[in-house]
Amino acid sequence: MTALGNVKLKPGDTIGILGGGQLGRMLAMAAARLGLKCQVFSPDPDSPAFDVVLNATCAEYADVEALELFANDVDVITYEFENVPAATAMVLAARRPVLPAQKILETTQDRLIEKNFVKRLGIDTADFADVSSVETLQSAIARIALPAVIKTRRFGYDGKGQAIVREGDDPSRIWEELGTKSAILEAFVPFEREISVIAARSADGHVECYDVTENEHRDHILKFSRVPAAISDELAGQARAVAERIAHALDYVGVLAVELFVVAGNGGPRVLVNEIAPRVHNSGHWTLDGASISQFEQHIRAIAGWPLGKPVRHGQVTMTNLIGDDILDYEQWLTVPGATVHLYGKGAPRPGRKMGHVTEVTPANSK
Amino acid sequence: MTALGNVKLKPGDTIGILGGGQLGRMLAMAAARLGLKCQVFSPDPDSPAFDVVLNATCAEYADVEALELFANDVDVITYEFENVPAATAMVLAARRPVLPAQKILETTQDRLIEKNFVKRLGIDTADFADVSSVETLQSAIARIALPAVIKTRRFGYDGKGQAIVREGDDPSRIWEELGTKSAILEAFVPFEREISVIAARSADGHVECYDVTENEHRDHILKFSRVPAAISDELAGQARAVAERIAHALDYVGVLAVELFVVAGNGGPRVLVNEIAPRVHNSGHWTLDGASISQFEQHIRAIAGWPLGKPVRHGQVTMTNLIGDDILDYEQWLTVPGATVHLYGKGAPRPGRKMGHVTEVTPANSK
Repeated sequence: MTALGNVKLKPGDTIGILGGGQLGRMLAMAAARLGLKCQVFSPDPDSPAFDVVLNATCAEYADVEALELFANDVDVITYEFENVPAATAMVLAARRPVLPAQKILETTQDRLIEKNFVKRLGIDTADFADVSSVETLQSAIARIALPAVIKTRRFGYDGKGQAIVREGDDPSRIWEELGTKSAILEAFVPFEREISVIAARSADGHVECYDVTENEHRDHILKFSRVPAAISDELAGQARAVAERIAHALDYVGVLAVELFVVAGNGGPRVLVNEIAPRVHNSGHWTLDGASISQFEQHIRAIAGWPLGKPVRHGQVTMTNLIGDDILDYEQWLTVPGATVHLYGKGAPRPGRKMGHVTEVTPANSK
Repeated sequence: MTALGNVKLKPGDTIGILGGGQLGRMLAMAAARLGLKCQVFSPDPDSPAFDVVLNATCAEYADVEALELFANDVDVITYEFENVPAATAMVLAARRPVLPAQKILETTQDRLIEKNFVKRLGIDTADFADVSSVETLQSAIARIALPAVIKTRRFGYDGKGQAIVREGDDPSRIWEELGTKSAILEAFVPFEREISVIAARSADGHVECYDVTENEHRDHILKFSRVPAAISDELAGQARAVAERIAHALDYVGVLAVELFVVAGNGGPRVLVNEIAPRVHNSGHWTLDGASISQFEQHIRAIAGWPLGKPVRHGQVTMTNLIGDDILDYEQWLTVPGATVHLYGKGAPRPGRKMGHVTEVTPANSK
């Protein structure tokens, strides 16, 4: 049991995880490896994370009584998704430490607040404008050259809640189709590549970043991650420094992911921050098999008040997501030499659903 | 659900595991990574494996009703320890496939049967003799030079149930202290090193062996495993061939470990089989972090009727067991760069109790 101050778990203590998807599942397995127990809270009775923990709570996030009982059972609480309702976080935080802290959710749940936060740190992003009506959309289009991307401020993921705005498009129609009252318009970024940095920060302010990952999306969903990214050491250093700065500014405890664009600049390529995910991230799944310590373990260590690890990468790594029907090929993947297959224990392979992933490591000496 | 013939699980199917220790725990986690569920059967309510599965059965191995209910809940059954009572295995095998098969337990639960089996394959062991009385012990001593080792035929592990017999020792006293009616006397082997081979065999007769591991014991308990073993490629090939021959001869399905001694011979070092463990083995724990596919996953693949993997080793690996109070140093281990820490979630660190282990990988290019 922990007080509401600094967390310092002992082996055998229990971590509460909000959310029962594959991220919660992999967090729970990482905790188990460290001798820590987990209890998962999720409204979905078929939650993949339920399969790997002794105790599960199946209840709605608005169920205050269930939240209180859950909090009483655990020593510290974390989450696998950034859209934890504020009221949920508040009920839990009154009883147990919630890490990363609730104020971080407020920043990262809203694209406008997040972008302004990043900008205030002096870190570059794509040009963006607040959009709350057809009129503000029109003036945003006038300021930001088209094509541009309109995104809902909240609850977007995997390309949901966004649309490209092109020359000649009708702003009223776009606004109507987006069906929101709060959005941002972002300049379309002609990026050379997409990269991400997975950073862990402990309560005492120590930060460990993994090597920069290069990401390839298909239909707005991550398909491949490769590490190291094919960028210069200098640019990789800049990307890691950005993630570190963000982690410090948020007074973050746990693992976060910063997604960045690499764009052409006058003095060579430079990075723009695209998005912050206050959680373990799909582009960090390669760390499970490609490094001595995974992002999931780093997150658990951070929220447990344990020292972060110094992960050593085993070589060049490629992570391939198994999305929807990709899962039907699992037997072929099982036979690929050096490939490590992860299946998430989900039921039906709906289109766009992340069903598993595969990691392939090429040893360091063949780099 | 599977018939009693060939097993072929689908993701989402359930594996029953007999035994709730760290081996069962790591088997369950490997199964989860492949999208398979596990149910653990163990009489110990504090079983570490209970923490990582949705369903657990806490009952005695002689509880036929509990065994039957357990069998009904699962699609295939395996075990983490070789001393599964024959009656238990029989009850289960009548309802679901039990892998490795029950007949293998009969061979490996008894040192005399096991040694005779190995000998019949034309594979070398230390000289041994059946001992069932003070008289047979005396004639065994006359035939096998002292020092020698007397071992109970059944239920010995980690040095329990064995004693060294030296010149001048009193046979009657030794026999009395051993407290058994069936033992073997083995010639003391002046080995150069102890090695082991972890081999996986699938139902279709395919075998995959890991690189040979070199083992160092303290007080009869494994303390360090290092891979690759410091032996010639030729000798390593011989050791793997021995394991493969044993796996085929047993018509084995799953992972087994063969412990061998390397001894000086006329034409150079040669290997003697010391022991067969019909299960995942402590000397294979390095595969969790040091190879693309672990021994636990290979075992799960084999008993699920899935293709075995082709594991790729990430470099030179050292595995250190955390025994008893070693566990108190876990925080120091957490800070060692490149070290991966496993804690088994056990309670009190009694002397000799395996509480966790640490893997350290040195990348292949620095070999």
